[in-house]
Amino acid sequence: MSDAGTQRIPDLPSHAAVVNVGLSLFADAVAAQGHPLAVVDWRIPAGGDARLVAALGRLYGRSAAAIDRANAEVVRRLDQPSPQIVSVAAAGAVVPGLEGRMLLHPGPVIAYEQVCDPLRRSMRAAVVAEGWAADSAAAEAALASGAIRLDSANLHDTVVPMVTALGPSQPVWVVEHPRAPRRTFAPINQGPGETPWFGRDTQGAIGRLRLLAGAVGPVLAAAVEAHGPIDVLGLAGQGVQMGDDVHIRTQASTNLLIRSLLPQLVGSSHPARVEVARLISANHLFFLTAAMAAARALVGWAEEVEGASIVTTMARNGTEFGIRVAGSPDWHVAPAPPIGQALYYPGQGPETSARDVGDSAVLELVGLGGAAAGGSPSVAAFVGGTMADAQAMTAELDLICAGRSSRFKLPNLDWRGTPLGIDVRKVIELGITPKVTTGILHVSDGSGQVGAGVATAPIGCFEEALLALDRATGR
Amino acid sequence: MSDAGTQRIPDLPSHAAVVNVGLSLFADAVAAQGHPLAVVDWRIPAGGDARLVAALGRLYGRSAAAIDRANAEVVRRLDQPSPQIVSVAAAGAVVPGLEGRMLLHPGPVIAYEQVCDPLRRSMRAAVVAEGWAADSAAAEAALASGAIRLDSANLHDTVVPMVTALGPSQPVWVVEHPRAPRRTFAPINQGPGETPWFGRDTQGAIGRLRLLAGAVGPVLAAAVEAHGPIDVLGLAGQGVQMGDDVHIRTQASTNLLIRSLLPQLVGSSHPARVEVARLISANHLFFLTAAMAAARALVGWAEEVEGASIVTTMARNGTEFGIRVAGSPDWHVAPAPPIGQALYYPGQGPETSARDVGDSAVLELVGLGGAAAGGSPSVAAFVGGTMADAQAMTAELDLICAGRSSRFKLPNLDWRGTPLGIDVRKVIELGITPKVTTGILHVSDGSGQVGAGVATAPIGCFEEALLALDRATGR
Repeated sequence: MSDAGTQRIPDLPSHAAVVNVGLSLFADAVAAQGHPLAVVDWRIPAGGDARLVAALGRLYGRSAAAIDRANAEVVRRLDQPSPQIVSVAAAGAVVPGLEGRMLLHPGPVIAYEQVCDPLRRSMRAAVVAEGWAADSAAAEAALASGAIRLDSANLHDTVVPMVTALGPSQPVWVVEHPRAPRRTFAPINQGPGETPWFGRDTQGAIGRLRLLAGAVGPVLAAAVEAHGPIDVLGLAGQGVQMGDDVHIRTQASTNLLIRSLLPQLVGSSHPARVEVARLISANHLFFLTAAMAAARALVGWAEEVEGASIVTTMARNGTEFGIRVAGSPDWHVAPAPPIGQALYYPGQGPETSARDVGDSAVLELVGLGGAAAGGSPSVAAFVGGTMADAQAMTAELDLICAGRSSRFKLPNLDWRGTPLGIDVRKVIELGITPKVTTGILHVSDGSGQVGAGVATAPIGCFEEALLALDRATGR
Repeated sequence: MSDAGTQRIPDLPSHAAVVNVGLSLFADAVAAQGHPLAVVDWRIPAGGDARLVAALGRLYGRSAAAIDRANAEVVRRLDQPSPQIVSVAAAGAVVPGLEGRMLLHPGPVIAYEQVCDPLRRSMRAAVVAEGWAADSAAAEAALASGAIRLDSANLHDTVVPMVTALGPSQPVWVVEHPRAPRRTFAPINQGPGETPWFGRDTQGAIGRLRLLAGAVGPVLAAAVEAHGPIDVLGLAGQGVQMGDDVHIRTQASTNLLIRSLLPQLVGSSHPARVEVARLISANHLFFLTAAMAAARALVGWAEEVEGASIVTTMARNGTEFGIRVAGSPDWHVAPAPPIGQALYYPGQGPETSARDVGDSAVLELVGLGGAAAGGSPSVAAFVGGTMADAQAMTAELDLICAGRSSRFKLPNLDWRGTPLGIDVRKVIELGITPKVTTGILHVSDGSGQVGAGVATAPIGCFEEALLALDRATGR
């Protein structure tokens, strides 16, 4: 068994007189008497589930050396490369397999009848914007009939945020990575307000998709071509030091990207360039999808490593939460969780909230999002208010990770790297799943975003992944 | 006497067995024996200088209530208003009294023969760029003969960074403040590299001034007019939460300003707009002078308060360091200090460094620069490397300040406001002068910036200010 359990004492007092392991009754009594005390938060591994404990015994036992070796390679692949944005293009022109009347959606493959309300709305808006239906009702009919093919974006080297439904007309960031097997993609972010990625299917939302296809894509394509390759994660690294978690908050990274592209944007001759600039200037999450495409490139190279226990896909379709582990194409799914620690818009709350959705949790796999919470005053607002609360979120993820980022460092934690490489063994051993910073959408009325918060991944898919790994390593 | 001395114990241990006041010999012995110990860093007030102690006795004694009242009003004026950038214009068209062949320089009034080498070079470059001399030699002759008038920028409601010499052709930010008596001004920052504000007088440096006058000014003037008023300190407040001290580091604030102006810059029809965008995009200190102009507006309103002991001007001409106190037009000067804690470019060091220079220390008077060091990883690099080192810089300034900012808050210090309102009484009582984050220029060879670091204000000018205040309050 690993020593992950004992890592839960970040600062062992130098003069502790009592060490308490496990249940806190004894510790409480000692503390009440005013004596120095160190508490080891020991838990029964895997909650005592015999099947899981047996699997853990093998995976930490005779298989441990091989797994640790593979994991080290996965961590290296998640940590070191610098994927670059090389162009912006219409998805249909570059994304492999995105052909005909087809939409890519977040998370694991899903049948239309199981799709949640906000993602359905987004799909309908996309179908109308693509010109495959005259209105929302016709779009619904086309989707229900199966005339529009649906597929998981991840199966096309693509990641999409929230309930984005990606059609071929929509512009995507194209990312290259010196070692990854294929290019990766993510849509140009649709921005704030009346937009399909927030589950809206109004005329305004459909208009936004047309503006993206007709103006934002071409302006950015020319700007990126004139600029040359953009080191996305280099910018993200600066953003982390400026308070971004680069998931729920990408303000600093967005501004760095805008500043980089300023001369090329000012040089645009597109007739709609000012409208495009206005949209970009108002979008605090402009960087989000650029970071996602780069993160997808990292996991795309890492997932080729055989025999590791590190998660390389973590994605939600609004109905199911799915993960994949390096070296295996199999998805392990569990029901999508509600979003726990949250701040809601006035009049909104858990009862009006859709479940956790989107491919953006790929960021948590590479040291961003919840991993970088400890440096982000904005995330702190969601998890208690103080930087200590946000730091606790990073510290918790540290317990279930195999390494630390050498690229994303937190100044107020003595420049410690963010946790990297979620190990399903540690997840099951400690019963701790990753936390994901995310937006929250209305469950049913199409009004869009209702808040933001922190989702906790369900344990079920990690249990399945552990058992599959145990089988694959020939128990 | 105030209780400022005891504030030096930020966290008094709850179980201290020994309290040591003053000299540390006894404390050292206690500590060596391993006993708990609290150290009160008590010092003889004013270093025991009888004149100063007597003045302090009066200013903390029978005059205290009136001074404290006036100080509270000064702090309120430094803290609350939101000066706005309303336009960009050529200095000669808007700065009062900048007429004919005249240059405005940083710091107190100075005769040309006493001007340091880098400021002379900057003045020569300005004279050539203004078209008042054909070359540097002719400019030198014109300056030496008195044909070019020189005056302190501060006397014209203007502040200039480093060794900037401001001629009438140069574009300035124009700042309005709802309550300040007059508009305030600061030049559009000249940017990195071969530039006069770093003490260079090459053809490239002269060319930069012409580009600023001919293209940068007009492009920004049109952009600001199209945008409408800009809440400079609102942006600075966000910048502080993103690691800017908004003096030596303005990266985040600069990017926020660029993002704000993006639609208007993209909408420019100026033939040189791309060249201008390239210059702005490459200038991490683009925001610096905008912040200075806004800070000058705050102190401009604050300096009208009579009978306070708060510093409202702190400016250096490279030869002298000068301060003024609210309610008095008198300058109190001391020799400009060398720059202490510094990082140098390769091959450079104290012996090749000019002395502390520029009006940018106005930022330290309003809660920025050294006051905001505790939130800035970049400043940390200059003062020891860790955030704790940077926080110590903010904590030290706290000891000599009368209040805290409600606008500039440090997330990693539990959202505490930065110190605000430097009280000359506390400076003299504790023998602690403000620290100023700043760039460093070559002392004599015109090669420009050689490093950056932290200057410590000389005590002499504060002693003079205290004695003048004591006389003015009718001892």
